Amino acid sequence: MDNYVRIFDTTLRDGEQSPGATMTSAEKLEVARALARLGVDIIEAGFPAASPDDLEAVRRIAIEVGTPPRGETLTARPPIICGLARASKNDIDKAWEAVRHAARPRLHTFLATSEIHMQYKLKLDREQVVDRVAEMVAYARRLCEDVEFSPEDAGRSEPEFLYVVLREAIKAGATTLNIPDTVGYTTPDEFGALIAGIVKNTPGIENCIISVHCHDDLGLATANTLAGIRAGARQAEVTINGIGERAGNTALEEVVMSLHTRRPMFNLTTGIDTTHLMRVSKLVSNYTGIPVQPNKAIVGANAFAHEAGIHQDGMLKHNQTYEIMRPETVGVTHSRLVLGKHSGRHAFKTRLSEMGYALSEDELDKAFARFKNVADKKKVVTDADLEALVADEVYQPRELYALDGLQVVCGTMGMPTATVRLRGPDGDVRTQAAVGTGPVDAAYKAIDGLVQAPNTLLEFAVHAVTEGIDALGEVTVRIQGRNGKHTLDAQKEMEQPRTFGGHGADTDIIVASVKAYLAAVNKMIVANSSASETENAAEVGVMLVC
Amino acid sequence: MDNYVRIFDTTLRDGEQSPGATMTSAEKLEVARALARLGVDIIEAGFPAASPDDLEAVRRIAIEVGTPPRGETLTARPPIICGLARASKNDIDKAWEAVRHAARPRLHTFLATSEIHMQYKLKLDREQVVDRVAEMVAYARRLCEDVEFSPEDAGRSEPEFLYVVLREAIKAGATTLNIPDTVGYTTPDEFGALIAGIVKNTPGIENCIISVHCHDDLGLATANTLAGIRAGARQAEVTINGIGERAGNTALEEVVMSLHTRRPMFNLTTGIDTTHLMRVSKLVSNYTGIPVQPNKAIVGANAFAHEAGIHQDGMLKHNQTYEIMRPETVGVTHSRLVLGKHSGRHAFKTRLSEMGYALSEDELDKAFARFKNVADKKKVVTDADLEALVADEVYQPRELYALDGLQVVCGTMGMPTATVRLRGPDGDVRTQAAVGTGPVDAAYKAIDGLVQAPNTLLEFAVHAVTEGIDALGEVTVRIQGRNGKHTLDAQKEMEQPRTFGGHGADTDIIVASVKAYLAAVNKMIVANSSASETENAAEVGVMLVC
Repeated sequence: MDNYVRIFDTTLRDGEQSPGATMTSAEKLEVARALARLGVDIIEAGFPAASPDDLEAVRRIAIEVGTPPRGETLTARPPIICGLARASKNDIDKAWEAVRHAARPRLHTFLATSEIHMQYKLKLDREQVVDRVAEMVAYARRLCEDVEFSPEDAGRSEPEFLYVVLREAIKAGATTLNIPDTVGYTTPDEFGALIAGIVKNTPGIENCIISVHCHDDLGLATANTLAGIRAGARQAEVTINGIGERAGNTALEEVVMSLHTRRPMFNLTTGIDTTHLMRVSKLVSNYTGIPVQPNKAIVGANAFAHEAGIHQDGMLKHNQTYEIMRPETVGVTHSRLVLGKHSGRHAFKTRLSEMGYALSEDELDKAFARFKNVADKKKVVTDADLEALVADEVYQPRELYALDGLQVVCGTMGMPTATVRLRGPDGDVRTQAAVGTGPVDAAYKAIDGLVQAPNTLLEFAVHAVTEGIDALGEVTVRIQGRNGKHTLDAQKEMEQPRTFGGHGADTDIIVASVKAYLAAVNKMIVANSSASETENAAEVGVMLVC
Repeated sequence: MDNYVRIFDTTLRDGEQSPGATMTSAEKLEVARALARLGVDIIEAGFPAASPDDLEAVRRIAIEVGTPPRGETLTARPPIICGLARASKNDIDKAWEAVRHAARPRLHTFLATSEIHMQYKLKLDREQVVDRVAEMVAYARRLCEDVEFSPEDAGRSEPEFLYVVLREAIKAGATTLNIPDTVGYTTPDEFGALIAGIVKNTPGIENCIISVHCHDDLGLATANTLAGIRAGARQAEVTINGIGERAGNTALEEVVMSLHTRRPMFNLTTGIDTTHLMRVSKLVSNYTGIPVQPNKAIVGANAFAHEAGIHQDGMLKHNQTYEIMRPETVGVTHSRLVLGKHSGRHAFKTRLSEMGYALSEDELDKAFARFKNVADKKKVVTDADLEALVADEVYQPRELYALDGLQVVCGTMGMPTATVRLRGPDGDVRTQAAVGTGPVDAAYKAIDGLVQAPNTLLEFAVHAVTEGIDALGEVTVRIQGRNGKHTLDAQKEMEQPRTFGGHGADTDIIVASVKAYLAAVNKMIVANSSASETENAAEVGVMLVC
């Protein structure tokens, strides 16, 4: 068994299933680029059968991130691009259509093997499950050399039955066998024993990679993943910041830094460049609108906070007294002052490119104009500010309705009032005033009056990007359309109302709030107007019955 | 060995050491009351030697939470109240002075036993460490029957040396031996083996309770704690939401729900009423200003989000398909509609008392006035709204400067302007206008002009309490005085600049922002003007040298 652990990132698939984590195609592409720079081995880019939009997003990632950059030698290998498919020909075809453009494509198909799932969800008996797995893995293998199979809810499946299913999957051509603890139910001892049992009892497993995929419902995802690796797994399925449905998936940064910090004990390596961890964490948090709590391991704001402001009194000579990792190792830097109002376009471009952003000249122009505007107001512009304004200016959804002007009056006298001027898709500029319970409510009511797109605000959060009273405020909102589209969940095989996130940054938090809301509303309108998606949802609905 | 695991909550001691988690005495008392209702066995209420304020806060908890309510029988036992002390007579005396009023007091003393800590922090050799432990445990035992000892950084200590130190602590009278993984360095296998080694090799350990205390730097705190328990520990030291320095402590809710959900496997019980978990989580998050990420296990907003909005299509008949816990078990309720504008004072009081708040008539009057105000603006007032407004109205620090009026103009035209009117400690009302980079910046600048208390804004966060555009906005801020007080850290034995958190709730987020900032500034001014604390800090400084 080799000592290299493959990192399989599913932020764009299982992570994006979190409520409100819906990302635009442009955002997904940027996250995929960041994951490639981070050094992940496999990017699970989505579930192409969910909708034509999902398929297209995976296809773009396969083409733009999954192939070697022009002119580069083949030694710098691009990541494997993987698409998820249920165990059906239609799903597998769609997934292949999306990933086949990658230099190294992978198909990932799954079927549940626990009694509870087979009985209540699949309504199939054991023999039917084994047959379906053999048939669909063989079908996928005819399309693609790299096929991964997952027995869903393996953590609650009978081990003897698992061995049989896995044996058949291997015979049918699966190259990676992924063992998911779908509901986050197992403990490290149990999960390690499950993997050890599979290693011991599955004929042919020695020629495959065993993968582990854990959920954090009991707070044990990282420990379970490490127990699986110690028992012989050589691929870990993880997400940035541990995002995902319910309590989320295993956090990439925790598994990687455990292996890294305790290397003498584990004697295992990964291909991850840990100095990118903090930046990718922030990128994903910005795009999904899912915040990272300060006491989150590795990437939380306080994880290295003991570094800052400590009154060195001569007693703490040895920094390992309370520190097992150096902040620099995960990309936490203390040189926060970067650019000021006198910085030119060249310095700005250089800094962005050092940070890993590849902007077109047009995008750079827009971002630079925003930078000058922010630099006029703030004394210093930090990396965090730059990240916020690039996210805000460059990776916005198609702007059907654009903010043309905003004026707000509020305070303790009551009657908070907002006047909003929007430029609509027809180019017309319209203005509306509204009174609300607060300035944000008033502004949102004014927008609702101009853009007839009924929705419910599910979440609203503001945080200051950087320290200091003049900080750039960042707002994320999440809305759900009242009569809009549903999205198909691959595992639950049912439709859920789709939610849309928006992000805005400005030194004026009311302006940022309005930008975030408009971004979410624009996303929702674009999604709802995509007629092809409706057809596909109907088609999938039919397929599920058979 | 019994099958009862004691839950030792250190939210008020190790949790409060998180940056910005500083709570007022009133807040600490309210958290202690909530912990008692939750059913924790031991409350570590603070580090009394840090300052007279800290001592007084622990003393109040010992008196008000650590004794049986008048008229109640002794069968309803109050929790043990514990105070932390370094291994010095002065610390132990101070801790005893604070906890001795409790029906069941405990003293907890500690000394580091890892080479790196002994050499760089303590500058003591092994023999000196053993002697100090024996002497100080014996000293504590003469004062109190219940004595806990912790070999700090046990996770990186040599096991053979640990056995010797623990043996001496037991001979000197320690009744609970706590094994901390101070830097969050161990893996479950290692930590379980450490506890098993202690069980096997420490003479006298069979008459003591072994305790485990883990940190989450690698995301393994819960798994390590459970591994320690399986190896024989019968006390777990934990915090609500896993708050604490760096990546925090083990989360109480994760350990308790792991034992609860997997009871047939663990065969262990706790005294926790799990239906209080969500409420205590929110209370601690509100008071400390430390948010809980949506994908946090058990208490995150998304942990049970699959429950909501699911388009039941007949396929998901069995709710255990994707669910290992019922939301009700941890206190997540779906009956969110509670009170409206026509609800009377009686209904309001009843609901608050059902929620576990015990308000005085005066506090109830204030809270009810606020409720009517909010109910006028919002259609329905939910439990979450009630919690926010009780936190905002009742448990505020002494208001030196009170907000008398606020007027704000902002928007895309630039020049955001705020006018603030404050009533000062002398009763005088003063008004100031300021322009800023945004409305919050402008308002904070106006306050700074009126209240000369230089500080740095470290953190600023807003979130909507409930769904819907007319949500009550909740703001938390954290500031650090420029020339203010430092606080003593028990373990690092050094002073850190003190940070102050503030909380404000209003349907107008600018008003909420101003309230939060004023609350933090008021806390800071009160703390800095407490002359006795300065004397004590000097005294502690002297003590550390000897």
